[in-house]
Amino acid sequence: MSTGYFGDIKPVRYEGPDSTNPLAYRHYNADEVVLGKRLEDHLRFAVAYWHTFAWPGGDPFGGQTFERPWFGETMEHAKLKADVAFELFSLLGVPYYCFHDADVRPEGATFAESAKRLDEIADHFEGKMAKTGVKLLWGTANLFSNRRFMSGAATNPDPDVFAYAAATVKHCIDVTKRLKGENYVLWGGREGYETLLNTDMGRELDQLGRFLNLVVDYKHKIGFTGTILIEPKPQEPTKHQYDYDVATVYGFLRKYGLEKEVKVNIEQGHAILAGHSFEHELATANALGIFGSIDMNRNDYQSGWDTDQFPNNVPEMALAYYQVLLGGGFKTGGTNFDAKLRRQSLDPEDLLVAHVGGMDACARGLKAAAKMIEDKALSAPLDARYAGWNSTEAKAMLSGERSLEQIAARVAADGIEPQPKSGRQEYLENVVNRYV
Amino acid sequence: MSTGYFGDIKPVRYEGPDSTNPLAYRHYNADEVVLGKRLEDHLRFAVAYWHTFAWPGGDPFGGQTFERPWFGETMEHAKLKADVAFELFSLLGVPYYCFHDADVRPEGATFAESAKRLDEIADHFEGKMAKTGVKLLWGTANLFSNRRFMSGAATNPDPDVFAYAAATVKHCIDVTKRLKGENYVLWGGREGYETLLNTDMGRELDQLGRFLNLVVDYKHKIGFTGTILIEPKPQEPTKHQYDYDVATVYGFLRKYGLEKEVKVNIEQGHAILAGHSFEHELATANALGIFGSIDMNRNDYQSGWDTDQFPNNVPEMALAYYQVLLGGGFKTGGTNFDAKLRRQSLDPEDLLVAHVGGMDACARGLKAAAKMIEDKALSAPLDARYAGWNSTEAKAMLSGERSLEQIAARVAADGIEPQPKSGRQEYLENVVNRYV
Amino acid sequence: MSTGYFGDIKPVRYEGPDSTNPLAYRHYNADEVVLGKRLEDHLRFAVAYWHTFAWPGGDPFGGQTFERPWFGETMEHAKLKADVAFELFSLLGVPYYCFHDADVRPEGATFAESAKRLDEIADHFEGKMAKTGVKLLWGTANLFSNRRFMSGAATNPDPDVFAYAAATVKHCIDVTKRLKGENYVLWGGREGYETLLNTDMGRELDQLGRFLNLVVDYKHKIGFTGTILIEPKPQEPTKHQYDYDVATVYGFLRKYGLEKEVKVNIEQGHAILAGHSFEHELATANALGIFGSIDMNRNDYQSGWDTDQFPNNVPEMALAYYQVLLGGGFKTGGTNFDAKLRRQSLDPEDLLVAHVGGMDACARGLKAAAKMIEDKALSAPLDARYAGWNSTEAKAMLSGERSLEQIAARVAADGIEPQPKSGRQEYLENVVNRYV
Amino acid sequence: MSTGYFGDIKPVRYEGPDSTNPLAYRHYNADEVVLGKRLEDHLRFAVAYWHTFAWPGGDPFGGQTFERPWFGETMEHAKLKADVAFELFSLLGVPYYCFHDADVRPEGATFAESAKRLDEIADHFEGKMAKTGVKLLWGTANLFSNRRFMSGAATNPDPDVFAYAAATVKHCIDVTKRLKGENYVLWGGREGYETLLNTDMGRELDQLGRFLNLVVDYKHKIGFTGTILIEPKPQEPTKHQYDYDVATVYGFLRKYGLEKEVKVNIEQGHAILAGHSFEHELATANALGIFGSIDMNRNDYQSGWDTDQFPNNVPEMALAYYQVLLGGGFKTGGTNFDAKLRRQSLDPEDLLVAHVGGMDACARGLKAAAKMIEDKALSAPLDARYAGWNSTEAKAMLSGERSLEQIAARVAADGIEPQPKSGRQEYLENVVNRYV
Ligand SMILES: [Co+2]
Ligand SMILES: [Co+2]
Ligand SMILES: [Co+2]
Ligand SMILES: [Co+2]
Ligand SMILES: [Co+2]
Ligand SMILES: [Co+2]
Ligand SMILES: [Co+2]
Ligand SMILES: [Co+2]
Repeated sequence: MSTGYFGDIKPVRYEGPDSTNPLAYRHYNADEVVLGKRLEDHLRFAVAYWHTFAWPGGDPFGGQTFERPWFGETMEHAKLKADVAFELFSLLGVPYYCFHDADVRPEGATFAESAKRLDEIADHFEGKMAKTGVKLLWGTANLFSNRRFMSGAATNPDPDVFAYAAATVKHCIDVTKRLKGENYVLWGGREGYETLLNTDMGRELDQLGRFLNLVVDYKHKIGFTGTILIEPKPQEPTKHQYDYDVATVYGFLRKYGLEKEVKVNIEQGHAILAGHSFEHELATANALGIFGSIDMNRNDYQSGWDTDQFPNNVPEMALAYYQVLLGGGFKTGGTNFDAKLRRQSLDPEDLLVAHVGGMDACARGLKAAAKMIEDKALSAPLDARYAGWNSTEAKAMLSGERSLEQIAARVAADGIEPQPKSGRQEYLENVVNRYV
Repeated sequence: MSTGYFGDIKPVRYEGPDSTNPLAYRHYNADEVVLGKRLEDHLRFAVAYWHTFAWPGGDPFGGQTFERPWFGETMEHAKLKADVAFELFSLLGVPYYCFHDADVRPEGATFAESAKRLDEIADHFEGKMAKTGVKLLWGTANLFSNRRFMSGAATNPDPDVFAYAAATVKHCIDVTKRLKGENYVLWGGREGYETLLNTDMGRELDQLGRFLNLVVDYKHKIGFTGTILIEPKPQEPTKHQYDYDVATVYGFLRKYGLEKEVKVNIEQGHAILAGHSFEHELATANALGIFGSIDMNRNDYQSGWDTDQFPNNVPEMALAYYQVLLGGGFKTGGTNFDAKLRRQSLDPEDLLVAHVGGMDACARGLKAAAKMIEDKALSAPLDARYAGWNSTEAKAMLSGERSLEQIAARVAADGIEPQPKSGRQEYLENVVNRYV
Repeated sequence: MSTGYFGDIKPVRYEGPDSTNPLAYRHYNADEVVLGKRLEDHLRFAVAYWHTFAWPGGDPFGGQTFERPWFGETMEHAKLKADVAFELFSLLGVPYYCFHDADVRPEGATFAESAKRLDEIADHFEGKMAKTGVKLLWGTANLFSNRRFMSGAATNPDPDVFAYAAATVKHCIDVTKRLKGENYVLWGGREGYETLLNTDMGRELDQLGRFLNLVVDYKHKIGFTGTILIEPKPQEPTKHQYDYDVATVYGFLRKYGLEKEVKVNIEQGHAILAGHSFEHELATANALGIFGSIDMNRNDYQSGWDTDQFPNNVPEMALAYYQVLLGGGFKTGGTNFDAKLRRQSLDPEDLLVAHVGGMDACARGLKAAAKMIEDKALSAPLDARYAGWNSTEAKAMLSGERSLEQIAARVAADGIEPQPKSGRQEYLENVVNRYV
Repeated sequence: MSTGYFGDIKPVRYEGPDSTNPLAYRHYNADEVVLGKRLEDHLRFAVAYWHTFAWPGGDPFGGQTFERPWFGETMEHAKLKADVAFELFSLLGVPYYCFHDADVRPEGATFAESAKRLDEIADHFEGKMAKTGVKLLWGTANLFSNRRFMSGAATNPDPDVFAYAAATVKHCIDVTKRLKGENYVLWGGREGYETLLNTDMGRELDQLGRFLNLVVDYKHKIGFTGTILIEPKPQEPTKHQYDYDVATVYGFLRKYGLEKEVKVNIEQGHAILAGHSFEHELATANALGIFGSIDMNRNDYQSGWDTDQFPNNVPEMALAYYQVLLGGGFKTGGTNFDAKLRRQSLDPEDLLVAHVGGMDACARGLKAAAKMIEDKALSAPLDARYAGWNSTEAKAMLSGERSLEQIAARVAADGIEPQPKSGRQEYLENVVNRYV
């Protein structure tokens, strides 16, 4: 029985590029096969519970704009919210969703009550998931909104907060496992500092390293086979967050012996905030062997905070999915829309329209990327550019069979005077524009 | 015999805070003892040859503004430059200088000729150093200005450029060793990319890792006891540089097994470009155990490129030296002014005035930092803030003696509900303002 | 009768630079005379009601951290808030405060009820002001928090919102006049756009121009003698705000014939967000003749949003007050702390400490600026730099008595080949460092 | 007779979207009619002489990478450069070019010699233009590269520099008029400041206002009918430039009585540097009535300086041309590529490929924009959004027929309580994605 929230809106169907129906897909045809795989299996779309169902539309200078019948602090509200959520998942035909504990149940008076409520909602979810076939891409714990976490969760100066956070994550992993979640995500929104004047960075990094090791040990102990993912973000809410970007997370994982256990969930908006492009962060994760999943939501380049908008720039998305495909595509990861409506987008239809547009843009981007790969449009010139490294002597240098003196001696002996060759950037950019 | 370039300017002396003589130190008294060490031994000032003697005053929209008698491409010019340089070092009373190969000798027609010229200048330097007592803080190779390096040095798609760069660094380390340099620096101005479309990041990182290993092996082989330093910078000249910031360099060193061999030379301006404060980068290096040296020149916060200005904001510098002192102070490192005059500062006197102001500001900053340490002004509140971690149970959590389930069980059993405590940021900022 | 909120804290006194009492002034001695005026009369400090009393400590990723007994939606809460506010004003010894309607009274169910509540609080304020001698620097209307303003107030696509906003401002000006406010401020937090796709910029600018003309006409009609001030801010909350920066506001005022009627309230944080330094915005306002007042709160240079921190960098503040003094000092304006505690600064004492530190830093900055003016430390070199413009021919060029051809003819006739002179930036920066 | 520089490359032809020929147009069909006008007449493409023929490929950390046979300081070199330039214009089939005096002739030993050389090149250009039909979109003077301008041209503290700049501009306008240039551009690369410590901003603005008035007077006197254009840029090379952005230029023009005489040449890259989107600057110019022309070259969003890259993001360009078309399209203005090759793009073919890709992307953008206009895809929802303002009472408010009190009285009388409506941003973004 429908909640009626979306009125008489019908499930969104693929109608092809010429459709002008705002509630149809023009590019996302779930069953279309690209590079030997269905689009649905490539893209593995997920809806984010928090922005789409829990966010009231506030910003730092204004309060709630959205009026949702499920806003309220009771379990009835929480269940209504779940009902509407699964209706949206089904209308869109997305295979996955993601949630924080705090998104789906009202906070209880005690830890125990909060946990009990989460379990009760998990029961409710299980029924919904069975009926709709929608799956859980990842679960996560909100360790940043409650004032108890204001000075950090794992990195708090108070060990009781560390313990409280640990207990919270344990329970959220339990629930994620029960719901067959394919990943578990940690975003350290408060794991960082506001001022170094009151912060012992070395100690806090050790706390965070310990925390993550506890999580990984627990995962193995209970047989949770999903991937543990860290979501890097440089700042906001804190002035500085320890999981700054992909490269920083990699160093952190190495320091605490976790580089084989943990991967990254990369968000376009967070890449931008860290001064990188999205494809940079994806390429870095590929190079370092820690690519996991993506949050496909964009930031406004002119705003210095996380605007979490639905993606829409197809050329940028093509370059992002090109990196995803170069890395072999998603394994347990997927394309999560960690995106919120603009706070002026008040209508139920806006919720659907936003996802439809985002999914369509992703589908176009992925298809363009796949075609570039099939055509070797970029890889053929790339191979040619590095071809010199295939020589015996070059291989020997790279593998460590030559010392600095040996190389220097060869430069002198052969009178090596390298001549630069064109990098052809404009040509390659034009090539990409053939595909997008 | 003087070149006469600085006219009748006398050596710069310490005259105390009330002096209005622009060519006197008001705060830098080399022999003043702070925390048991002379200021000169704390600060270990170095003048950068390139900006101060080789830079012609150009910018992307304008050419040379400085008219120096030593500008020219002959060895006579190079020696005149050296003579004036050592006059400036002596007038200032700085203990150190730093240089790139390209700063001190004209490029030759071949590698061999360039090397021979460098050797000849090194002879000249040896004489000057013996006479003046000025020492070499570090040497380095310019692997970024010549067009052969336009697509990278170690990370070039052409292995011949890798080889050429290797030969260059070998020779520069030889010269640095001969001149008793206390460090050798690598700044990877072209080790990065302009576009991912023509770049294989994983391969280029491997090239860079191999290159650095070659350098470290060579250092040990020839018994060079100075420190190998990487200078992080996020971008400029390339769109993205691999040595982005301290945390990124740390991950890179771990990946290539070099975290015990290589340290970082941190520049304030580069910290800013990477979205960090200078003290953040210093604290990070301390936390990760790779702090080496500093380039104490500031960037304009409103300009998105490296403005390399002389430092002058004492409160910022106090926080920077506070981190340096927390890490135990400089070992082989020092305070290099990688700073250039504004291109409108045409006069010989401007060269002196800029260094005097920078050195004075550093001295004020360091003395303020030292006093805060003596007074435990920040460390006492810090210890109190983390005091909870001294309990037996907290220590057990941090050391790994408790599992996630054990911690969760304790939260449940004890009904832990942490209460937040004030972070007192404004109080601590006011405390700092007592010292600066 | 005290509310007891601040316990037994005594009024903050001036104790001189050597005091280590966190609740004493070290530099702000209200009666100290500088450039012929008392410090209190120079600085004209005001406390901002909103951040200090109404802000709950939330951020985009977390809720309330502050627990204040006056948080609540009743008039009793509002009066308790006022009582504590005036206690803080008196403990600090500040001469002024500022408020929005929404800060001081709970929103009513209707416009009329909201207005009645504001009037009732104004009565309460009148009593408090009479008793304490604290005055109103400026009043303002909150036209950005309520969802009715989500798409703009004056610039809303719905003319009813324009009307509602007009009625609100009318009432707030009435109250400001009654309370003898010395200025009335308009900050257009929603006067801008999220996307040009749904925005008619030309029309919205016309709406805003009309609105401001209505306000100015009304001011004159009722005999309100305070200054009307616009507070520029480039963005946040909206993607783009029409009152971007001082220069943009100037153009807007010219377009709508208001450049003699309206001045600017310049906030350091907003200057930074617009890519300017604070002193730039102040100098611009002086050059354009529209300087009014300041919001003396800083932004973090590494954060892309308005962090509204208490000021603490004395060198920066000296440069800011130097511009204020160059412009003749405040007339009706003053130094408002549009600053909020960090959300981790939970204690009542933090409220006091933050203001004390800010006021002290302002006092140091102003005194340094005053001394530079007395010594002509910067103005003498400046006059020398432009001295060439005192020649007869130069004056004739500038006043328009020479045509382009005449000037060109003189260049040819005299063979003019200008020789550049040093701009001496480092020297001048060192001079400033003598004072701060 | 061909210089042979471009080998046997044939003129670039339109081959349609399926072409994979890198030297064919896929979208730019000059004769295609859109909105009643040929594409060539809509887009009015121009090649920039400086980047394409004069720039050696240097950056702040590296020297020349390009090796062009015309690099050199003789008039023979200058003429060879011109010959190759007109070959490129013809191969591309662009209707226009633009130049600075300094791009086209070597600087002479005196003003007179420089002028004579420019005249000689202008003769050469006249012949080329007659033969090829290529026209001059605009001329301009380089008042920023020579060291005499290091502290400003019109805003220099030395009135002799003002005079020298005035003479230079006079001559460049004469030449532009002779070559039938359709506009004359002023970009104030040195009209700004490095530090306020040595700058009198009010005086310098007056100097700049006088300078521009001299130019406008001269234009009328000699009957030059082209448009005078200012090119806004916020900074770089100077820390702050007075022509910061479109809104700032508007205020400046109003202050000096020039808002009807001067328009703006808007560059995408400069918009970005000022914290705006390109379409924002275009919409602002339309709203303020000063739109003139565009420099269609993009900046890298992750680089804080002017990267001047060829445009390639079609969705962004569609939004830009949408604003151009909304403003009625170009009058005397056009689409100038103020874009430079990446310095690694060494080959002659790269010069062609870059322009071909840029022109194609512009054509796609313009065609998408035109189609959106034809379909009223955005304008119909926009009209609906503001429809409330068509009511009698709303019009009366906007026209000034209602006072603040009257409006307030109506709010009270009618009990106006506005209800917000969805802004539909995601819907509109999806609509745009149908076209790009
Ligand atoms: Co985000
Ligand atoms: Co995310
Ligand atoms: Co630098
Ligand atoms: Co450096
Ligand atoms: Co603010
Ligand atoms: Co403010
Ligand atoms: Co540009
Ligand atoms: Co331009």
